[in-house]
Amino acid sequence: MNKINIAVLGFGNVGSGTIKILNMNKVKIEAKTGCEINVKNIFVKDINKEREVAVSKDILTSNIDLILEDPSISIIVELLGGVEPALSYIKRALICGKNVVTANKQVIATYGNELRKLAKENNVLLKYEASVAGGIPILGLLSESLSGNEFNEITGIINGTTNFILTKMTEKGMDYDIALKDAQALGFAEADPSSDVLGEDVAYKLSILAKVGFNFDISPKDIPTEGINKISKDDIEYALEFGYKIKLLATIIKTGNQIECHVRPTFIPISHPLASVSNEYNALLIKGNAVSDIMVYGKGAGSMATGSAVVGDIIDIIIKGDCKKLFDVSKQTNDTKTINSYNSSNASPSILNFIGEGESMFYMNMIVSDSPGVMGKISTCLGNHEISIDSVIQRSSAIRNDGFVSVVYIVHKCSRTSIQDALKEIANYDFVKEIKSIIPVSPLN
Amino acid sequence: MNKINIAVLGFGNVGSGTIKILNMNKVKIEAKTGCEINVKNIFVKDINKEREVAVSKDILTSNIDLILEDPSISIIVELLGGVEPALSYIKRALICGKNVVTANKQVIATYGNELRKLAKENNVLLKYEASVAGGIPILGLLSESLSGNEFNEITGIINGTTNFILTKMTEKGMDYDIALKDAQALGFAEADPSSDVLGEDVAYKLSILAKVGFNFDISPKDIPTEGINKISKDDIEYALEFGYKIKLLATIIKTGNQIECHVRPTFIPISHPLASVSNEYNALLIKGNAVSDIMVYGKGAGSMATGSAVVGDIIDIIIKGDCKKLFDVSKQTNDTKTINSYNSSNASPSILNFIGEGESMFYMNMIVSDSPGVMGKISTCLGNHEISIDSVIQRSSAIRNDGFVSVVYIVHKCSRTSIQDALKEIANYDFVKEIKSIIPVSPLN
Repeated sequence: MNKINIAVLGFGNVGSGTIKILNMNKVKIEAKTGCEINVKNIFVKDINKEREVAVSKDILTSNIDLILEDPSISIIVELLGGVEPALSYIKRALICGKNVVTANKQVIATYGNELRKLAKENNVLLKYEASVAGGIPILGLLSESLSGNEFNEITGIINGTTNFILTKMTEKGMDYDIALKDAQALGFAEADPSSDVLGEDVAYKLSILAKVGFNFDISPKDIPTEGINKISKDDIEYALEFGYKIKLLATIIKTGNQIECHVRPTFIPISHPLASVSNEYNALLIKGNAVSDIMVYGKGAGSMATGSAVVGDIIDIIIKGDCKKLFDVSKQTNDTKTINSYNSSNASPSILNFIGEGESMFYMNMIVSDSPGVMGKISTCLGNHEISIDSVIQRSSAIRNDGFVSVVYIVHKCSRTSIQDALKEIANYDFVKEIKSIIPVSPLN
Repeated sequence: MNKINIAVLGFGNVGSGTIKILNMNKVKIEAKTGCEINVKNIFVKDINKEREVAVSKDILTSNIDLILEDPSISIIVELLGGVEPALSYIKRALICGKNVVTANKQVIATYGNELRKLAKENNVLLKYEASVAGGIPILGLLSESLSGNEFNEITGIINGTTNFILTKMTEKGMDYDIALKDAQALGFAEADPSSDVLGEDVAYKLSILAKVGFNFDISPKDIPTEGINKISKDDIEYALEFGYKIKLLATIIKTGNQIECHVRPTFIPISHPLASVSNEYNALLIKGNAVSDIMVYGKGAGSMATGSAVVGDIIDIIIKGDCKKLFDVSKQTNDTKTINSYNSSNASPSILNFIGEGESMFYMNMIVSDSPGVMGKISTCLGNHEISIDSVIQRSSAIRNDGFVSVVYIVHKCSRTSIQDALKEIANYDFVKEIKSIIPVSPLN
């Protein structure tokens, strides 16, 4: 049996899962690929650290050159995380003619084009299924199984931490802070949860989805992004009362040559397929112009689920890659076809008009004094901005200790700018204490 | 741009969808593959028939030899359905060195091994994503994206007709006959619905899933199969009362080297992810030993959804296939790697011990006379067969016009044989009018 040498960079959570899976499913993987996968080296900072998975000490090394300059290693599996040194190692690997698998959303979201170009120039493959939604093979679906489709929309819950927190707030009536602590205690949130709760993690993944699904280049920092850190128990309760749940959604919608793209907490109808995705689970809803709706649901994180995606990519490279190069990278040939990672290697980026957030329905919660004429003035002001009202709740039981009261509106489709303009005016009224929340609403279809 | 000639056999529902998608998404497909896909011929019985999709009359032909003997055609897309002549055409195509895409579950379930062998011998690809669950790319998931996993279980709703009927019975309280007529009127059931309602269609698909997911060979006729034609409104109502919905499930479970495999209506808890799959939708739940649970949901039939799977296979062949052969099948080379359809080309079929249905919980509905001691005797008899009771319902309001009454049991895990033995004894009691239903129950995890 042919032997393929690979090296794994990083031996943390995902690295351990990957090694475990390669061992556990060795027989099946060899049958599938016709090759033995030999983990020749694992790159670690500290060779002597205790490891969760037992491996021979001889394969551990803290010398990256040993790996990148070894012509017998044909696949580099980058699982270090963070931008540097991961980015430099990936670049060097590609330039050395090695295929690369990575789970690094930050690197791919920010430097994907440069790396894809390098891979193409060096006639090797670059794969990154694990960088979006862990075990859910969304990139494979978009770029292979569903490749006969033009996509109209991708909407997903692709951050397990925030979905866990929102689920606890919804199901147990927890406050945000308590739910976050709960998530941290259970290992679903990090000590510094900001990248998750502010939506940044989701923006990275959405940028990758925009490229793979729509061939649309957008930098994570250009994606309108809101996290869940301002969501209150009140918002969750009002949502339920109106028949919605609040979920942190990553969304791309293409209409003609216009594309909108955003990360934001959203009211979704309880009957929506994504509404029942709970706790740390992820799910994505894809609308293709041929297949119509497809939903895929699974674990978006965790060492084994993410390792599953990494191992899938390794197998795919062995099956699709140039065998001669896989068995010995020093023997490069030029007469083979290059199948270049996920992207239409022949396509220029789509010429799409980015419209940011687009229009949507909105929920607003305002704290006002409990006096006559208040609702009339708010409603008139909304009307003056051509914002039309879908539903309103104000109830006597909602009077707070300070004598103020919540007034809650859901309004029909409009731009966030017009909402903000109207609310700026409304905030000037004496009777307004605070504009507490503005959350988009996804209507029942 | 390179041009690849393909021929489509059959111009019905799926054929029309396929041609529509190839036209509609031409630009994206060309960017993805780097090739122009030219439909050189469509094989039809009647050239002069009016067609839903406009194509040049010149490409229609009723002469199959013209297609199979044309060396410039490298991919044959078989969408005729039924065993013959589809099977013979596929064989001839493979022998002539042509790649084949088919949506034909009957042919693949029954003759798959022979055809895979032929494809391998002739160094061409055979793909059949559309044969299972229409637009849902389940075979691609199992054999590619999730190929790093050993699977423990696949359970699915993979027949839209029966799911539509069961949904109507559940949501609208319809009788089976009425719901079936409704499905026929809306085009979700055929005039002769027997293959769907008896579960045969599902058994074909499950046989393909067993091969692709578990490398397990089982003929559809050897799969224990029950349809939905005996499900009554009463069963649906009792199910809801106990907290279940009834779904027609296709299931394969592997435990060690034992494999169970069956098609049968099943009580599933309302909270089960498959319970909310309604109407004509399909869904599959996959349990992998690395990725844990993955669910995929979408349209299991329809010209565009099924066409999406067919076009995905065509694209995959162009990307993975041997280019020289694709551009001109007359120039065959032997120095290329063969990626042989979905199966681990190097794997022998799994040596798995087939245990048929395995054990499960069961629901039973018995019509008995409303007299003292009845429940005692039934319960004692079940106990004598070591069948232990989970729940019982008998209520005074259930007394029928004929004075008999329904007694409903849910019992703990046992084999169907022990249930049947016990019920044979119970049926001998004078007070028993009829054993109405025995339906497996999938417990809450």
